[in-house]
Amino acid sequence: MATKLDESEILSGLQDLPGWALEGGRIEKTFTFASYPECVAFAVKVALHAEKADHHPDSLEIMWGKVKVAYVTHSAGGVTRLDLEAAAQVDTLV
Amino acid sequence: MATKLDESEILSGLQDLPGWALEGGRIEKTFTFASYPECVAFAVKVALHAEKADHHPDSLEIMWGKVKVAYVTHSAGGVTRLDLEAAAQVDTLV
Repeated sequence: MATKLDESEILSGLQDLPGWALEGGRIEKTFTFASYPECVAFAVKVALHAEKADHHPDSLEIMWGKVKVAYVTHSAGGVTRLDLEAAAQVDTLV
Repeated sequence: MATKLDESEILSGLQDLPGWALEGGRIEKTFTFASYPECVAFAVKVALHAEKADHHPDSLEIMWGKVKVAYVTHSAGGVTRLDLEAAAQVDTLV
């Protein structure tokens, strides 16, 4: 099982993840799109990846023209390596 | 164009919409599901309905085992009849 990272480890990991930030104990990023269908398509791709990887976003929020993705590992009580890996994967799905 | 409803009109409309509440100037409801795929399937149904009706949730948030849907009509500066109608439609999609 992945263990909780401390803040310096998280911030170090985020250096390789442009646009991702530590907010309220989670890592999150907002992606922008030109249309609502594009938002939905991206969210579905993130969801399918999450299901396959068995590591799901804490929140996957579809808004008008943007999608916010947030990760934290509740079972570890904080952000883990799994969340950073998921964030990197999500970036490839745009 | 739909006009902004006042609070009493919104609360009156919500009486026919169990589980929906006025929160932060939007109407919102959280739906619970047994699995992540069920959450995603519901969210996609809401999104497809929104696109067809050309009235989209302000936020459609997929979490673990639950989906939160929120409506407000930004062009009217508040909750309108369109939001109440959308909420009623969303309830039929579960």
